[in-house]
Amino acid sequence: MSGEATGKTGLEAVLAGIDAALPAALDRLMELLRIPSISTDPAWKADCARAADWLVADLKSLGFTAESRPTPGHPMVVAHGGTGERHLLFYGHYDVQPVDPLNLWHRDPFDPVIEATAKGDVIRGRGSSDDKGQLMTFIEACRAWKAVHGTLPCRITIFLEGEEESGSPSLIPFMRDNAGELTADLALICDTSMVSPGVPSIAGQLRGMLKDEFTLHGPKIDLHSGHYGGPALNPLREISKLVASFHDDQGRVAVEGFYAGVHEVPADLKRQWESCGFDEADYLGSVGFTRAHGEAGYSTLEQQWARPTLEINGLWGGYQGAGSKTVIPAEAHCKITCRLVGDMDPDDLRRKVRAHVEARLPKDARVTWDNNLEGSPAAVMKTDRPEFEAARQALSDEWNREAVIVGMGGSIPIAGFFKTILGMDAMLIGFANDDDAIHSPNEKYDVQSFHKGIRSWARVLERLV
Amino acid sequence: MSGEATGKTGLEAVLAGIDAALPAALDRLMELLRIPSISTDPAWKADCARAADWLVADLKSLGFTAESRPTPGHPMVVAHGGTGERHLLFYGHYDVQPVDPLNLWHRDPFDPVIEATAKGDVIRGRGSSDDKGQLMTFIEACRAWKAVHGTLPCRITIFLEGEEESGSPSLIPFMRDNAGELTADLALICDTSMVSPGVPSIAGQLRGMLKDEFTLHGPKIDLHSGHYGGPALNPLREISKLVASFHDDQGRVAVEGFYAGVHEVPADLKRQWESCGFDEADYLGSVGFTRAHGEAGYSTLEQQWARPTLEINGLWGGYQGAGSKTVIPAEAHCKITCRLVGDMDPDDLRRKVRAHVEARLPKDARVTWDNNLEGSPAAVMKTDRPEFEAARQALSDEWNREAVIVGMGGSIPIAGFFKTILGMDAMLIGFANDDDAIHSPNEKYDVQSFHKGIRSWARVLERLV
Repeated sequence: MSGEATGKTGLEAVLAGIDAALPAALDRLMELLRIPSISTDPAWKADCARAADWLVADLKSLGFTAESRPTPGHPMVVAHGGTGERHLLFYGHYDVQPVDPLNLWHRDPFDPVIEATAKGDVIRGRGSSDDKGQLMTFIEACRAWKAVHGTLPCRITIFLEGEEESGSPSLIPFMRDNAGELTADLALICDTSMVSPGVPSIAGQLRGMLKDEFTLHGPKIDLHSGHYGGPALNPLREISKLVASFHDDQGRVAVEGFYAGVHEVPADLKRQWESCGFDEADYLGSVGFTRAHGEAGYSTLEQQWARPTLEINGLWGGYQGAGSKTVIPAEAHCKITCRLVGDMDPDDLRRKVRAHVEARLPKDARVTWDNNLEGSPAAVMKTDRPEFEAARQALSDEWNREAVIVGMGGSIPIAGFFKTILGMDAMLIGFANDDDAIHSPNEKYDVQSFHKGIRSWARVLERLV
Repeated sequence: MSGEATGKTGLEAVLAGIDAALPAALDRLMELLRIPSISTDPAWKADCARAADWLVADLKSLGFTAESRPTPGHPMVVAHGGTGERHLLFYGHYDVQPVDPLNLWHRDPFDPVIEATAKGDVIRGRGSSDDKGQLMTFIEACRAWKAVHGTLPCRITIFLEGEEESGSPSLIPFMRDNAGELTADLALICDTSMVSPGVPSIAGQLRGMLKDEFTLHGPKIDLHSGHYGGPALNPLREISKLVASFHDDQGRVAVEGFYAGVHEVPADLKRQWESCGFDEADYLGSVGFTRAHGEAGYSTLEQQWARPTLEINGLWGGYQGAGSKTVIPAEAHCKITCRLVGDMDPDDLRRKVRAHVEARLPKDARVTWDNNLEGSPAAVMKTDRPEFEAARQALSDEWNREAVIVGMGGSIPIAGFFKTILGMDAMLIGFANDDDAIHSPNEKYDVQSFHKGIRSWARVLERLV
């Protein structure tokens, strides 16, 4: 670590520069937020390209050789800059979630604004937190560094994706095709949140994901519940039995072999989590829960970070309109996602989940599966790498609070891909808060997250180079 | 019965007249079918009135004093004609079901046509079977009678509703306000089907109906399955457990006290049913079943006609679009109908079903109920009235097959209302077939049903007057 060599004066100058240039940094973020780069809907394709171009231009102004590279989907932004032994890659995504239901937004999602709230100023708008605001914290840190030092802190590759919110179809082929230039010493990712407001957090583990969907077929056609009610097999009843069979009465997943590859949390990590500032009552109470509803015998944090889940995300069949319709429908549908931890294998798990369903099908029912849904294993970071301790110290300095290595309930497959495709470890540091409403109406990013996020990266870079 | 007095020659002349005038009768039915009298959708209000007016004009041409009487909804057609001691009321409905999904129709639902099929000629179009074709069988029988005899067979009141397919909101108030003129010796209803093609059938019992609907509320807002998956209560899982709890593993409804008021089918009636020509293999096989899926220990016919049900007609929550959305939804929804038999009390049953759900709610979940859904008890006909035996003989003569008194799995609340509001028994005779696709695309009515239906009513009238 050459932090000492850079000198305290240098870092303090960078931090002072960040403070002074905050209004300009916010203006730049606003510009980027005004581009409606929704990646799932082809109607916004040109805007995705525009967001990539905006980033390329901004990165060029910092001395990066930056390009918007075409893919079958939305372009990838790849930029290289700086020199030196140390080579860091920074990953973020410039695409955003759709904005529906639009009527629940209090203003145009793409006309961002700084709003004063009881909890402080926030940047309101789609993508402010996920992920434009977060990715700009790193770019602004580079800008401030360059303003003081005249150069970037080290050799830096910036890799920004435009399909993260739509399944990243081009990501793996692009990484394979460009493995040489994308492989660095370590990947830095800014797409996660803090465990609690003001508590700087490094993700030590992320859950993986398995998506699946099935249709249960019963009678050949929709039946009249007068003519057939009684003798008929009702797919809605049968699918309910199947869904109910997925868990036992202790909240444990009852699919045979489901927990293969799941490891208990080591005692010392568990202790760290217990003192990480996570406010269980607030976390549960804010959404209307008086207690955790997951697996008996595990804490709320363990249930969220370290235990696998089998969750139903959609369930439907029959009549959904006003009033009554006396129908026994021909089909019922179920969307499933599992969150994976430890060494759980998504392909193996898919077979087990499907076998569970198929073994319980009654006579005269059959099931069909959607075979287009992906899976990714959990990602456990190499937290014993020295960069993690360096980052922990840098973050602790900035936030006046010991930084913590936490779990994450969500899934960020890119960390796993960096490891499996490029052999590169990743370190995830993010400044989002749980109330940022990412993927929801009225998304926001705290101005504090943005400001201290930029400062945090400057401090992290100072310790890494 | 004055059938003998009317003379065989008279009846034979009426039947010959029916045969000769069949093309004209079909033309009239086609005219009525061309009026899109969909009662649920206000867009077709004028067409409902037009169908009522068409019927008034037709009944006037037969010497009835007929009127289209306004209601807060669609008009009632009330017509009086004929003289004599005997006073019969005929009930039918001129409104029809909506036609969606329109893309599954092979032609315009309101451009009816006679089609040759492998099973014989059919009248294709919305309402052909339910109930315009059926109600016209009675009116055409009156017309043929009048053509031969110069008069109607007895004092006849015709009462045609325009809201049967939309919950009959005006029916009970109208019957109460006009009880005097609507009360006859016996009500005749033509809105049922034959137990098997060619087997003339009189409904001896109809199941009642209880409609209910609930929403299960979990978290205050939709949750992200990464951030909350594990500790979160998932309404889709909870509603599945509730639905699964409604039945035991023998197909019996597990709601406490559900079977109060249910009686076993008397042995002699059961024997009649067993020999009524019901083709179990065809009934089940035509919709893809290899066996009956209802209560263990009861025959398919008992399950359909004589046993109560608790059926799920709609179940939904979460994401239903393409692909995956990692949501734990705030709500899940369930639509229920129960079919009632014997002396089951709908109000009592509603309390029991709701108590079953509420007793099983997990902590942090709550349930809300739709309080706008009605219930009606089962209707058991007075099959020992002499008119039933007379009708049985008349139908047996027409179809060359002994007529049977059968159960009906469906619910026709009007029969119960005639009894409770007007103190009048009802006899339900219908000529529909199970494959008529009522309420579905490509509804049809067999020309044989129409033709022999008219002849059947002529024979029944001949025996009743």
